[in-house]
Amino acid sequence: MFLFLWVLHTACSSRVFGSTDFDYKARVTLKEGFFRNYSLGGHHSRVEILQGPENGMVYVGANFRLLLINFEAPKKSKEVIWQHNVTVLLEDKSTDTLFVCGTNGTQICCSMETLGTCRSLHKADGIAPISVDERAPSLFVDGELYSTAGLSHNRNRFGIRRDFQNIIWPAPNKTEQRYISLALSGPRVDQLQDRVYTFLMEKNLDSHPEASPWIPCVSQVCRVDHGGSKNILQQSWTSHLTARLSCGIRHKNVYFTELLDVAVLHAETWSDSRVYALFRNIWNMSAICVYTMGDIDKIFTNSAFKGHSEQIPTPRPGMCVNNSKTLPDKVLNMAKEQLQMERWVQPVSDKGMMIFSHQQYTHIRVDQVKGSGPGEHTVLLLALEDGRIHKVLEQKGQPFIVAELQPLQPGVRVLNMLLQATTKKLYVCTSTEVLEVDLLTCESYGENCELCIQARDPYCGWDPRSRKCTVASSHTIQDVENASPSVCTKGKACNSEKYISQEITLDLLPSGSCFLRCPMPWAHAEYSWHYQGTQQQCVYTEEDCLLLIDNVNPQQDRMYWCEASEGGYRRTIMTYRLKIVNKAWRLAHQHSGILCILILIALFL
Amino acid sequence: MFLFLWVLHTACSSRVFGSTDFDYKARVTLKEGFFRNYSLGGHHSRVEILQGPENGMVYVGANFRLLLINFEAPKKSKEVIWQHNVTVLLEDKSTDTLFVCGTNGTQICCSMETLGTCRSLHKADGIAPISVDERAPSLFVDGELYSTAGLSHNRNRFGIRRDFQNIIWPAPNKTEQRYISLALSGPRVDQLQDRVYTFLMEKNLDSHPEASPWIPCVSQVCRVDHGGSKNILQQSWTSHLTARLSCGIRHKNVYFTELLDVAVLHAETWSDSRVYALFRNIWNMSAICVYTMGDIDKIFTNSAFKGHSEQIPTPRPGMCVNNSKTLPDKVLNMAKEQLQMERWVQPVSDKGMMIFSHQQYTHIRVDQVKGSGPGEHTVLLLALEDGRIHKVLEQKGQPFIVAELQPLQPGVRVLNMLLQATTKKLYVCTSTEVLEVDLLTCESYGENCELCIQARDPYCGWDPRSRKCTVASSHTIQDVENASPSVCTKGKACNSEKYISQEITLDLLPSGSCFLRCPMPWAHAEYSWHYQGTQQQCVYTEEDCLLLIDNVNPQQDRMYWCEASEGGYRRTIMTYRLKIVNKAWRLAHQHSGILCILILIALFL
Repeated sequence: MFLFLWVLHTACSSRVFGSTDFDYKARVTLKEGFFRNYSLGGHHSRVEILQGPENGMVYVGANFRLLLINFEAPKKSKEVIWQHNVTVLLEDKSTDTLFVCGTNGTQICCSMETLGTCRSLHKADGIAPISVDERAPSLFVDGELYSTAGLSHNRNRFGIRRDFQNIIWPAPNKTEQRYISLALSGPRVDQLQDRVYTFLMEKNLDSHPEASPWIPCVSQVCRVDHGGSKNILQQSWTSHLTARLSCGIRHKNVYFTELLDVAVLHAETWSDSRVYALFRNIWNMSAICVYTMGDIDKIFTNSAFKGHSEQIPTPRPGMCVNNSKTLPDKVLNMAKEQLQMERWVQPVSDKGMMIFSHQQYTHIRVDQVKGSGPGEHTVLLLALEDGRIHKVLEQKGQPFIVAELQPLQPGVRVLNMLLQATTKKLYVCTSTEVLEVDLLTCESYGENCELCIQARDPYCGWDPRSRKCTVASSHTIQDVENASPSVCTKGKACNSEKYISQEITLDLLPSGSCFLRCPMPWAHAEYSWHYQGTQQQCVYTEEDCLLLIDNVNPQQDRMYWCEASEGGYRRTIMTYRLKIVNKAWRLAHQHSGILCILILIALFL
Repeated sequence: MFLFLWVLHTACSSRVFGSTDFDYKARVTLKEGFFRNYSLGGHHSRVEILQGPENGMVYVGANFRLLLINFEAPKKSKEVIWQHNVTVLLEDKSTDTLFVCGTNGTQICCSMETLGTCRSLHKADGIAPISVDERAPSLFVDGELYSTAGLSHNRNRFGIRRDFQNIIWPAPNKTEQRYISLALSGPRVDQLQDRVYTFLMEKNLDSHPEASPWIPCVSQVCRVDHGGSKNILQQSWTSHLTARLSCGIRHKNVYFTELLDVAVLHAETWSDSRVYALFRNIWNMSAICVYTMGDIDKIFTNSAFKGHSEQIPTPRPGMCVNNSKTLPDKVLNMAKEQLQMERWVQPVSDKGMMIFSHQQYTHIRVDQVKGSGPGEHTVLLLALEDGRIHKVLEQKGQPFIVAELQPLQPGVRVLNMLLQATTKKLYVCTSTEVLEVDLLTCESYGENCELCIQARDPYCGWDPRSRKCTVASSHTIQDVENASPSVCTKGKACNSEKYISQEITLDLLPSGSCFLRCPMPWAHAEYSWHYQGTQQQCVYTEEDCLLLIDNVNPQQDRMYWCEASEGGYRRTIMTYRLKIVNKAWRLAHQHSGILCILILIALFL
């Protein structure tokens, strides 16, 4: 870790260097000291993870293995062998049991009170994926299980299925689907209207030469849906609607169409709940678009139906009704057609995308953070294709990459992530281990208030009493919005704290080459070398700003220092004192011994 | 320029390092010694360029200026002031005159025998662009002028116009068009069927949400077209058809749609002529797709017409006929609809794109090169957004960037380019100057046969008599296909030539830092440092592979060398001999003088 002292030159100057160019680079990079790991033993192609019974504990299901990892006391962790590859790992809060499914040629689902011991077996078809590679998210809502696994006996029956209380099957589907995530759209004031949303990719039936082969969608089903009448849609959804998710550059008709992951931030009012959807395009660029549940609902309740110009029957298909079995045939026949909405769901931001990046993100989790002030901040946790993790502040739709975490060896892929919002821990699963990543690494930002503020980490604030960058609370100073270190001196006269940077003295012989190394702890800063009123640009390597001195000569016997400039702040990182040893003088001294002997001999003669 | 000697370790070893990763980097970069420039005086928003009356001479038209630049004898160049911004600069071979148009509020076109002096004035409407910013390519074919300028009195009459012999106007058009280039599709065996092709961008009328707003197209008109009957299409094209150009990833329905530039390589048989089309997408990526004139012709003569399911009348619209004025009304009425072909023109390569790159190319010129062997090679000359130029070998649809030429200051944009194929000179126009770039810079590849061969420059070969890398001829050795230096030793025993690399001795004091610099003349090579059986990776800067030695100590008193490895060849670029001066020994010597004086004093006492 970086631990230098610096000179704070211009604590009260205004912001000089814009940072827009750097917004897609992480400001700082952390490589150690912020995570613990737990080995899964062996190599696992799929890892499911679930919040454990206590903080610091997680349930993990892998290939032929179930674990309850206790990161606080690793020796108290439990591991059991199970005869299946775990594909579903849920908590059924209504019965306080674990619900686990697996596959091993055949599928199995069971409720567990004790890890690895089935209390009761369930029919697994349509609940547990057939293949260990099939992504089939599922969700418990009040003891009802919504699942999306393929049916072994009827391969074209894609879709969401409900089990336990009122079993409902998906209707036979026209097109292939890939499921990404499920979420409750509720609870609403009128609970009758509560829905479950499925986020998915759908094979496009549009034969237009420029139509995307797969399109990202959201579909809805009503929680109260009991299926249709005896003749139409019996025990199948009557409220199933699908709408396309729009994420891209609308006026150019360019869209991101590969939906990779979804994270939902539930709000007090259901309609304010935000859906963070992570997309990729064919060029391996990433985009994140944010939708509100309210906006999705508006499309389902107001948009025209694709290919339906005639009058819409009453009740409108997709509305949740008390007894769906008594719906008029006209409504049921229309619902049978797998209704698509004409209008697309548009993201919150006018610009379309909240994040657009050449980085290849693969997973997204979202946290709501209470900082020092009255408001709340949104933090995105994004895994990258090569195992790095970005901690991103979202502010008014603008991203700021606060930190890049590198807990994994480069190239190790993240298979799954779980955010424990209460303890601010992120659990990261790879094929061989589970990592507990601490998101409260406030001390790593530096040992003074200005650096703590410039970090813009909503989790962290400057504690004036302990004089430390620490977990944000009402006692700490923070300025996530503007990152203006002037908050450090608020109420006081502007007296910047002065530190002395690290100074190194180097003895050099003339004619050689020499390099001075300056680390670059903040990626958004600009670095430069200085000596005797002269400024010189860095020679950049991956990690350092170097000053290369090719032909060392006596004129270079002086002081050199390296400065970082960020948001109008200039900090001296390193100071070098070069001492050029005179070669001629040295040679004279080398020969003075011989000279002395010669004089002695002369005297004795 | 790079001028080191090297040790050729493994002249006969097989290819070890694959080069696919490096194919989109230029192998070498040239910054000086290959170009001459001529200042245009002032800043010009548009520069037209035309082959001059002799080799080494070019006509140039700019803002209020006409020039005949003689690069062989710059003082013999001619410059005249003209009262217009030059927008058209053509040679009318049928009358051996210059045809020049300009705009300055009003447009003017005239024929010139002497630079700047109008011999005869022409009506300019539809020939000369109204605005200096309007790109409106034009073409002389046997004294007939095909032009694409907008009409000042009828803004929706976009399209190609013919002048001088049989004036033909474009029919009123439904949609906006932007013209990129014109080319003759001929001469054919049946000259009646000769056509002129226009390459253009067309505003898409398709309202599909994923349809590109603009689409790249090629259109045809027959050279013999004399317009329709008195009632239908009188003095307008009867043979005008348009087809979409496909360039992209077909199975994903992803296409490059912004057509930037076109270069045509005319073949002996007209249908083999190749059209090199340079595209860009919204993400600023570049693609080059190659089409044959024969393939374009097949689409125009065989494809269904978009939106026409009924029987096609005879003669089929778009066929060239002896007297178009007598065409049946049925044919003329169909032609009036601005016919679009149903099928798209597909590029030659199965992969769709010949070049796909994250580089932003802006201009393309293509040369056919006769090398040392019997076959011919294709070289693309591509200008980049920032003024660099890539010399690219095309081989079986695969690009290899032979060299990057940097004749301009970074960021200076290329406005126009002209290739003089006879002398292998590329003329590059910027807003302030015209450059003559020599494409025969063979000596820059190095002073031995292996390097000359590995350069893969079809213009260059190794002359065994003069022992130089020189302009390719039947006397030189070349292996553009495989770049295998084994051709250098063909017929002889494999005795690699040995050179001694540059050796530098450095005196260093312990405890300091030191860097060793190794230039990287070949971007496709891999570089590494070596000492005493140890290999160490480079610390890369933009230009060099560095070895950083942080704490100099006596153990480092040894030889270090830097190697480049390319295509199985390892070459030593630099050798350093580090001499670590012992500090303790030095101090002892420094104090030996004092010691000597002490002994003398003791003796005298």
